[in-house]
Parts: sequence; structure tokens; C-alpha cells
Amino acid sequence: MSRESEFQAVARELGYDFNGELQKGGNYTPVIRHAGQVFVSGQVPRVGSEIVVTGRVGTEVTLERAQLAARICVMRALALLRQSPGALDAVSRVLRVTVFVQAADGFTQLSEVADGASDVLFRVLGQAGAHTRTSVGVAQLPKNAAVELDLIAAVD
Amino acid sequence: MSRESEFQAVARELGYDFNGELQKGGNYTPVIRHAGQVFVSGQVPRVGSEIVVTGRVGTEVTLERAQLAARICVMRALALLRQSPGALDAVSRVLRVTVFVQAADGFTQLSEVADGASDVLFRVLGQAGAHTRTSVGVAQLPKNAAVELDLIAAVD
Amino acid sequence: MSRESEFQAVARELGYDFNGELQKGGNYTPVIRHAGQVFVSGQVPRVGSEIVVTGRVGTEVTLERAQLAARICVMRALALLRQSPGALDAVSRVLRVTVFVQAADGFTQLSEVADGASDVLFRVLGQAGAHTRTSVGVAQLPKNAAVELDLIAAVD
Repeated sequence: MSRESEFQAVARELGYDFNGELQKGGNYTPVIRHAGQVFVSGQVPRVGSEIVVTGRVGTEVTLERAQLAARICVMRALALLRQSPGALDAVSRVLRVTVFVQAADGFTQLSEVADGASDVLFRVLGQAGAHTRTSVGVAQLPKNAAVELDLIAAVD
Repeated sequence: MSRESEFQAVARELGYDFNGELQKGGNYTPVIRHAGQVFVSGQVPRVGSEIVVTGRVGTEVTLERAQLAARICVMRALALLRQSPGALDAVSRVLRVTVFVQAADGFTQLSEVADGASDVLFRVLGQAGAHTRTSVGVAQLPKNAAVELDLIAAVD
Repeated sequence: MSRESEFQAVARELGYDFNGELQKGGNYTPVIRHAGQVFVSGQVPRVGSEIVVTGRVGTEVTLERAQLAARICVMRALALLRQSPGALDAVSRVLRVTVFVQAADGFTQLSEVADGASDVLFRVLGQAGAHTRTSVGVAQLPKNAAVELDLIAAVD
């Protein structure tokens, strides 16, 4: 399957539409492509105007819901890339993914949350979806989002 | 106005001088320029030897004071760049800004804090100040600073 | 001394062996080298299958133990680099080090913790070990690790 088809298949499975406008939360730019690299701003699990998964992971939010949040975040990142014609196919590597989890005291399964996003990258991008990753648990995220994710990719 | 004039105008409005030595807090390098990119170390709102805005945002520190902190952090980052002759004018894009806010429990206006820094980037650098951004609320920052910010820029 | 000899000397002083397999905690890639840059995933102070320093810095973990944790994290990053023949000698700059500390409320000596890692970089890589750095205190780290560190380096 093409990357576009895989992207659409994941969107259908999640039950969300990533084709519309992707609202942002402040005075910045969602994506910048420059000199063979593309930087994507921190994404929260927003669909339309709603943050789909809010709260603290480990108490208010289960691991499974947090993994869903991570999947939505990374789908938003890919959706932002594909607003530029050809950009999804131009990704040759995902150099860095950073996953921030709004974690309850004592919740340490941060890598497990991040795996939700990593799985989507491998599925949509194949071998080019291989990436380095850092996962941390933070005190608060914008709009009480359960997860936030940003990335840097190499593009041809 | 030139970038230098805008930089000076913002400094005057803030009431702080960013021309002197910019103290750092450990065994690292404030700025590294390499192969068309410049990396600036994490900046706290320090002027001289004083951290201007300390404490937890949402309880001890208001949104307005936190935005001031973000402005000072990014002015320090620009001040470090301009210690290298011509470097401020050489910036062609700001690829990534990461803003860490020392947030009180339940304080979610992290993007609003970061907008303080973003506004300065647009004002001083114009269109080249457009940037991707990630804002998170963390447990603690060095020296009890309310905000810390780092960035990566593209330079010609 | 060569970088390899310095690396081995630090390993001996720490009393840990970094020659074996370096276990990772999820579905990602430890190191990616692309277009003159190498990205290393977030490293926790794991030796074999054990996280050597766990807990919250400032209460359960002393500054000295946290600095040890930072040293192990950065040695793991260097160990991952040197699994690629010649890669340790190919590093021409360390562009960015980000140090996340699992900090107790009120623990602000985050730069001091990070200095543990910075010292190792200077020792093993000499002038090429100069780096920009960001240190933050976060709520939780994977597997209750006291410190996590990632980096981006330039390679020839």
C-alpha cells in the first residue's frame, strides 16, 4: 500500500478525519521544511476543536487511552506533512520523535505510551518510519492534553 | 527597521540590557553554529546574575509575568546569536523553539506563555522569525526559573 | 589518549561495562545517522537489564547519585555511537544535549546534575565534546529512572 493509503487506513481505524484544517494553539508555524529537514510543532490529540484525550495518565487516563492520544498526535503530525503535496512520500527518515506524557505521580510506562505513536510511524512510512525517540512524563500539557509529540524528519 | 534596531527597541521596552556578558549555569556552550544551523542552549530569564522571574506559574507567577519571562529568555537567545557579528542578520528561519514552563498543578495556558517568546521572534526577525514550537509544563527548572527556552535556527 | 581509550577509562572508573548489547525500552531505533548528523534516542542509566539510579532527585536520590546517573546516560549514548565503526572518531561537534531530571518538588540543581554528563563529553571527545545544553526537571521518567538524556551530534 502507498503511504497515503496506509494513512487513510489508520485514520479510518481511529475513527477520526485528519483531512480538514488542523487548528493550532498559538502564534507559531505548524511545519517548517528547510534544507532537507522538516520540523513539526508539538501536537496534542486535537480533532477539530476538541482535545480527544485530556487528563493525567495513570489516574484519569488509562495506558490504552494514552496510546490512542499518542496515535492521534502522530497522525496530526503526518497530516500536517501531507498538506504539502508529495511531502509524505518525501520523508526518508524520522530523525527524532519526542513524546511528552502528562503523567500522574508514579506512572512510569512512558515508553509504552509512546509506542502508540511509533507503531503508526512504522505502519505509514515503512522502514523510513524508523526513528530515534525520547519519552518523558511532564507536569502539565497545553489544554490539559494527555500527550504531546513533536518530530524532526529528513526529506529528500 | 533593521533586526538590530528592533532588538534594541524590545530591550528598551522590557527595561533590560542584553549587551553584557550572558552568564551561563554549567559546563556547556551557549551557542554552536555548524553546517547552516545554530543551536542555542536552554535560556532562563536571567539578567546579569539575577533570575528575573522565579516560581511556579499559575500560583506564584501570573500568566503576564510568565510571558515576560518568555520574552527575556528569547531575547537572551537572540543576544547570544548577535555576539557573533552578522549572525542575527544571517538567520533565515527559526526551525524549532521549545518552551518549558515551571507550571503549577492545573495550569494549562502553556501556549499562551510561549506566545510571549514567539511575538519577539516575529518582531525582531520578521518572516524569518516564523518557527515551529513545542510548549510543555515541567516540574522544576534550573534556579527556580519560571520559564526556560531553547532553539534551533537556520543560518545562511 | 584516543577517544576510545578515554571512553574505556571512564567506563572503568564508573565500574560498568558498556560493550554489550544496549537494551532499549520500546519500538524505536537507538541511533540514526543521516546527512552529517547523528541523533541518539533518550538514554536512561541502564546497565544490562538494571536501571542503576532510580527515584526522585532531591529526596530519594542525592545530587551525587544523579550526576552518576547522568554519566551513565551519556556513556550509553557514546556506546551506541561506537557500535558503528569509526563513529566515535567521526563526531566533530555535539550540537545539542537535553537532560531530563526526575526532580523532587523544590529541587533546582538541574544544571549541576547535567554537568555530570557534560564532563564526560569533554573528557572523551575533547574540544568536539563542546555542546549546547538544556536541563529540565520533569515529573516522571521511564522505569522510574532518575535521569534521561538525548543528543544530536555532527559527524564528518
